[in-house]
Amino acid sequence: MNAFRIASLLVPAMLAATALSASADDRPAKPAAPATPVPKAAKAADKPASPIYGVTLPDGYRQWQMIGVATEDAPLDELRAVVGNSIAVEAYRLGKLPFPDGAMLVKLAWKRERSKEFPAATVPGHPTTVQVMVKDAKRYAQSGGWGYGRFINGQPVDAAQHQTCFACHESLVKDRDDVFTRFAP
Amino acid sequence: MNAFRIASLLVPAMLAATALSASADDRPAKPAAPATPVPKAAKAADKPASPIYGVTLPDGYRQWQMIGVATEDAPLDELRAVVGNSIAVEAYRLGKLPFPDGAMLVKLAWKRERSKEFPAATVPGHPTTVQVMVKDAKRYAQSGGWGYGRFINGQPVDAAQHQTCFACHESLVKDRDDVFTRFAP
Repeated sequence: MNAFRIASLLVPAMLAATALSASADDRPAKPAAPATPVPKAAKAADKPASPIYGVTLPDGYRQWQMIGVATEDAPLDELRAVVGNSIAVEAYRLGKLPFPDGAMLVKLAWKRERSKEFPAATVPGHPTTVQVMVKDAKRYAQSGGWGYGRFINGQPVDAAQHQTCFACHESLVKDRDDVFTRFAP
Repeated sequence: MNAFRIASLLVPAMLAATALSASADDRPAKPAAPATPVPKAAKAADKPASPIYGVTLPDGYRQWQMIGVATEDAPLDELRAVVGNSIAVEAYRLGKLPFPDGAMLVKLAWKRERSKEFPAATVPGHPTTVQVMVKDAKRYAQSGGWGYGRFINGQPVDAAQHQTCFACHESLVKDRDDVFTRFAP
């Protein structure tokens, strides 16, 4: 399977859908109110948004600059990479905290597998979660200025899991604006 | 130490040096021949080049897109990330081999350390090597079309170490154009 190709097909399709939605002029002048409130971020991009925070998967994040990599022990047994948008990268470059509004970090995670061709190495296997942090000091004032999103197969996990994000980050790395990942030189 | 800042200071300085060199008009009309032959790549950019292949560290590679990540067991005990230039990324996207001329891959490696803030994770410690593959089917016809460079602190390692690159890649991943790293979705 060429996962890159699938992703590259999905993104233009999503962009096209957004463009169509934005340019459509055949909608009713007064659209019916939705049955349930829709988070602003999800409404804007028509994408699944995390509970509590309304965070969506940012467009094009797979092309963002790599900030650092990590492993996580069993039972997760994962390889991870954190990428950042240009605002986040610039904040790392300046070494200045807190991160400014608009900074976004995305952590990609995969099951860790032994390389078939080079057994001394472990490499990414099946992708597991994609986790997002979005800085908006005003909107997310109750959670250190960060909104959190945790996605599996493009869908956000439940509210209970999202309730753990801020508490853990704040308790362990409050002095680094709740961000674990350092820039890897 | 803010390694990002050091790197960001070095790159402009190197670019400035290159620009100055290119625009200087006070050089002798017939410069003296160098005492020893200088590899073409090193001459062009005035950067240290690998033995055998004359491969240099590409400008701006730290901003390239992440292809994949890996660990290497003890005694190296490293975390690694492979990034690629746009030609390499496009080749991965198309899933087509061999890689075209101009494709470049860079592997960054760091000692693997236990995270102080989150002990279930390991994170990048001291950087160890930066390894480069440059595709030029004609120039590197004797080594599967790839030129190799292995750098420590910006300096290429010796010829003996570079003699092992091609033999290992060719023996283990010949069917993938001598490239170990797959694109991590």
